[in-house]
Amino acid sequence: MRIALDAMGGDHAPAVNVEGAVETVNEFDHIELILVGDESLIRRELDSKRYPLNRIAIRHASQVVRMDESPSVAIRKKKDSSIRRAVELVRAGEADAFVSAGHSGVAMATALFLLGTSKGVDRPAIAAMMPTLKGPFVLIDAGANVDCRPENLLQFALMGNAYCRSILEKPKPKVALLSIGEEDTKGNELTKEAFKFLKEADINFTGNIDGKDIFTGNADVIVCDGFIGNVVLKTSEGLADAIIKMLKREIIDLTTGRVGYLLMKPALKNFKKKTDYDEYGGAPLLGINGTCIISHGRSTAKAIRNAIRVASDFSEKKVYEIIASEIEKHKTVIPTQVGIQRKDKE
Amino acid sequence: MRIALDAMGGDHAPAVNVEGAVETVNEFDHIELILVGDESLIRRELDSKRYPLNRIAIRHASQVVRMDESPSVAIRKKKDSSIRRAVELVRAGEADAFVSAGHSGVAMATALFLLGTSKGVDRPAIAAMMPTLKGPFVLIDAGANVDCRPENLLQFALMGNAYCRSILEKPKPKVALLSIGEEDTKGNELTKEAFKFLKEADINFTGNIDGKDIFTGNADVIVCDGFIGNVVLKTSEGLADAIIKMLKREIIDLTTGRVGYLLMKPALKNFKKKTDYDEYGGAPLLGINGTCIISHGRSTAKAIRNAIRVASDFSEKKVYEIIASEIEKHKTVIPTQVGIQRKDKE
Repeated sequence: MRIALDAMGGDHAPAVNVEGAVETVNEFDHIELILVGDESLIRRELDSKRYPLNRIAIRHASQVVRMDESPSVAIRKKKDSSIRRAVELVRAGEADAFVSAGHSGVAMATALFLLGTSKGVDRPAIAAMMPTLKGPFVLIDAGANVDCRPENLLQFALMGNAYCRSILEKPKPKVALLSIGEEDTKGNELTKEAFKFLKEADINFTGNIDGKDIFTGNADVIVCDGFIGNVVLKTSEGLADAIIKMLKREIIDLTTGRVGYLLMKPALKNFKKKTDYDEYGGAPLLGINGTCIISHGRSTAKAIRNAIRVASDFSEKKVYEIIASEIEKHKTVIPTQVGIQRKDKE
Repeated sequence: MRIALDAMGGDHAPAVNVEGAVETVNEFDHIELILVGDESLIRRELDSKRYPLNRIAIRHASQVVRMDESPSVAIRKKKDSSIRRAVELVRAGEADAFVSAGHSGVAMATALFLLGTSKGVDRPAIAAMMPTLKGPFVLIDAGANVDCRPENLLQFALMGNAYCRSILEKPKPKVALLSIGEEDTKGNELTKEAFKFLKEADINFTGNIDGKDIFTGNADVIVCDGFIGNVVLKTSEGLADAIIKMLKREIIDLTTGRVGYLLMKPALKNFKKKTDYDEYGGAPLLGINGTCIISHGRSTAKAIRNAIRVASDFSEKKVYEIIASEIEKHKTVIPTQVGIQRKDKE
């Protein structure tokens, strides 16, 4: 399994990227890595580390996409960026998968442009794992598509379902549609139309799910448009941070607080570990004709290592082929309602 | 100040409603209440309680709207419901404001139907208070309008701004637009158009706010459509519950856990108090030509009491008149762009 890693993407690149890469090859015998980016910088990071030399290669790229760049400009002007060179390795068959903690918009657009979509897929979507009381669920779309049609939501459901079955090994994932109440009739124009498609699809569709229930762990896949998905993902991150800060303040304010806090600390740490973004590593871009894992800009070495592990899993199980066959199957189930082959003019 | 309370609305009605009413008149000298609902049931609850008898009246209503009823059917068929009778008291000038913990859709539709909108308002919106690290902010719309046009979002901003200035007494509230990144260009079709309107409005518009930043307390008013607002509100409620449960489990799992938990308990209680829905009492329906406070179905007596207090504040400060004048002012500022007078065919 050979994976191309964008060594220059993320807030702490290339240091944590190289560190994560070294940890990966030391831990997993079946993974080889190609680090893509500024060769001299990468080599400097590698020099002090011990690892099987034949399992990490470097591919030089002279440009880096900055986080504040416009995707369209970056794609047009930076033909030698680490993101682009890494995706090109996948296209050429020199790598099985691609991981980046860099500019997610540019990574997505480049993957779409160079690799294309899986057969029948209208729009790729980001599938993010989120923790709950009973283990994680998959939120799809977590930010790739800000304006969607109902048939896009159907495809997101099919892709999330395929992800859950093949990677999380749940044979019959419970797929729910994010809405503003559980009743079938609740929702906006988009979700009400999408509801009808989901009901007809060959998945275990459990109906609408209300915001207050998403962290109970009763759904394995939660479907929504990318604007809402991104708001939910970020709001949850922000709220979890705020709650921990508020609680710490309340604890410190107590007379018994310092003792309580010391006794509590391991619990806070365990909690953080279970809900930590780094544990999940990266979010797959589903619907692309190839394996593409998008990591958080603030990824640590651990997050990079886990993202590479996820990429290896996805590639090994050929999730993108499973997705293509699921979409194909549903084309014949509800062919006239769903304009799967239609291309947007955007 | 005379307030009509739907005594039959909510999961624990009429017991908690009557209890909250009695607490209110015992605490606030300037408030009189009219309890609307089944006279014999209300009287039975009142019988055991001590309060100034001349400050609580009863208005009989023979019907109750159930939580699972369709608004259109309930409004057509239940002409003698406690919700309708209470709103009628406001329309007739017998009450200054109206509070309900019952079916929020029916309460909103009845208020809209019987009282109409404030002059110039296209669509009323729910303004919910949410806690942050630095005190609460106002989320508008928290669920009244699931599909919006950009000019609706402008009106929500103006209404939230008026609320913040008159009730929370912040002279220059920071108004932000909920989006998927802070940059001006980030968003979906709706928010990108709304952004242009907000930039032109005579408010302290601070730009887009990302989901991860809404709980930092850097915005006083956060504007979004009612679908997203409802998802954010409910997701936050659900996540806060889940985090507290997960933390408790982690604490109990420790060897030092039981001691730590006992030492921590007051901190958890303080935290709960500060983030407790009951403290805010109810969310005003802004843009209605009158004062209408919507309370949570699971309201406690404390929540009912706080909702009545909020209703009294709103009515005293005539927030609905301030809103009408704000909307009027902006009609001349950006008259052609904003189709404020346009009526939907829905």
